Amino acid sequence: MKRVFYQGERGCFSELAAEKFFDSPIEGIGVPTFEAVFEAVKNERDGYGIIPIENALTGSIHQNYDLLLKYDLWIVGEVRLKITFNLLAHPGVRLPSINEVWSHPVALDQCKEFFTRHPEYKIVPVYDTAGAAKILQKEKRTDVGILAGPQVAKLYGLETLEQRVEDNPQNFTRFLILSGEKKICTGQDVKTSLVFGVKNAPGILFKCLSIFALRNIDLTKLESRPIIGKPWEYLFYIDLKGSIEDESCKGAVENFREVVAYLRILGSYELKW
Amino acid sequence: MKRVFYQGERGCFSELAAEKFFDSPIEGIGVPTFEAVFEAVKNERDGYGIIPIENALTGSIHQNYDLLLKYDLWIVGEVRLKITFNLLAHPGVRLPSINEVWSHPVALDQCKEFFTRHPEYKIVPVYDTAGAAKILQKEKRTDVGILAGPQVAKLYGLETLEQRVEDNPQNFTRFLILSGEKKICTGQDVKTSLVFGVKNAPGILFKCLSIFALRNIDLTKLESRPIIGKPWEYLFYIDLKGSIEDESCKGAVENFREVVAYLRILGSYELKW
Repeated sequence: MKRVFYQGERGCFSELAAEKFFDSPIEGIGVPTFEAVFEAVKNERDGYGIIPIENALTGSIHQNYDLLLKYDLWIVGEVRLKITFNLLAHPGVRLPSINEVWSHPVALDQCKEFFTRHPEYKIVPVYDTAGAAKILQKEKRTDVGILAGPQVAKLYGLETLEQRVEDNPQNFTRFLILSGEKKICTGQDVKTSLVFGVKNAPGILFKCLSIFALRNIDLTKLESRPIIGKPWEYLFYIDLKGSIEDESCKGAVENFREVVAYLRILGSYELKW
Repeated sequence: MKRVFYQGERGCFSELAAEKFFDSPIEGIGVPTFEAVFEAVKNERDGYGIIPIENALTGSIHQNYDLLLKYDLWIVGEVRLKITFNLLAHPGVRLPSINEVWSHPVALDQCKEFFTRHPEYKIVPVYDTAGAAKILQKEKRTDVGILAGPQVAKLYGLETLEQRVEDNPQNFTRFLILSGEKKICTGQDVKTSLVFGVKNAPGILFKCLSIFALRNIDLTKLESRPIIGKPWEYLFYIDLKGSIEDESCKGAVENFREVVAYLRILGSYELKW
């Protein structure tokens, strides 16, 4: 069984995403922060990590971009998960007895219409969606509901009172699988991620992108992050279609090294939908 | 006197930045959220707003990018401010009596080395740096220090115990001035901001950037944000040197309209260092 570290409690979306990626039950180990995931993967030779990197509604999780740079790990996979929230409570509890609803602040924010329909609910932010279930399981309160993924109910002995209460059904999160060991994938459905820094010069970003455009390499994502200590200079994170082992991609990267001040390949990895 | 709305209490960095931009005292009006700044500028014909858009250490403030899109306002200026934090307390309080330090979470996070030197301090996050001063002024506690800008001490009758306790002296924030009225600047030190969306096609971002590169127009910032309801499609925010009234820039924008699916000019405005 694969050992996989994630931020959160059992039943969190990261754990669910890891099971989807490895297509089997995993030995999931929850840790308190995203950085703790990176630390654990660095220190445990045979473990993997999983982190959310982007949500379709709220955008990139920039902290994890910064951690990809700080730690010397490899991206070995990507998996996309539909995010949906159910209202859960202790068995036997009915809707009218609910006075409070607990969940992660982002989940609460993505279910605004639900709270507009229920202005009587007190909204209580907690550290994790599955964590809300964990607290409720212990506290046995019959006036509290939580918002969490459907997978959470069974794990914590709760029942589902309402399904899919999120505002926007187009709610997806991209997760990355991390490993301390280099593993370069090739073939269909492979993506490559890299991060680069440029010397400030007019049109430099255009020059960088031209290297890929000339070879018909498709970019799927471009993200910039500040360079600490160099105000208004940036590192760029690029995702492109294809493997670093592909001929065209190899040529592009060689070409790229001539132009940029800094380049690191973060991985060539399989994408699971 | 210019009426300027900002998020925060009197003495916050946004207010200081507004005074720097207008080069005179302002009639500052603090509101509770960034969105409230946009709302106020929309509703008050003769008022301005000021919002932070990027910090050199923590990166873009993405919420404000999204609000620029949501509201139909004009960017009419940019100002850059050095951010520095002092330890403030009630007059007569000496360092050894401090047990707790209050400030905004971002300020606390930017003064980590100070807290490593003082592990005895209890760290208490509050909603605003100047807000910490406001609470302390009322509570008269002699065991509490706050971290806030140097301008805060006099306003709230506090004294400075330690200066410049931030970890990184290269701490700057860029602020944008907002107005409901269109005002296009020309001349030196003028920047233009625009936001555009593209139909997904290989190399499309490269094509967009080529329009500026061919005319030697320098891009100073590129930021992407998700399009709600269209997973993994993005809007791009670009800052470029020059005014939309410049010949080369006019040509670029006309050219640009042929390529993109959506384009909005957010403003051509003066930059004050």
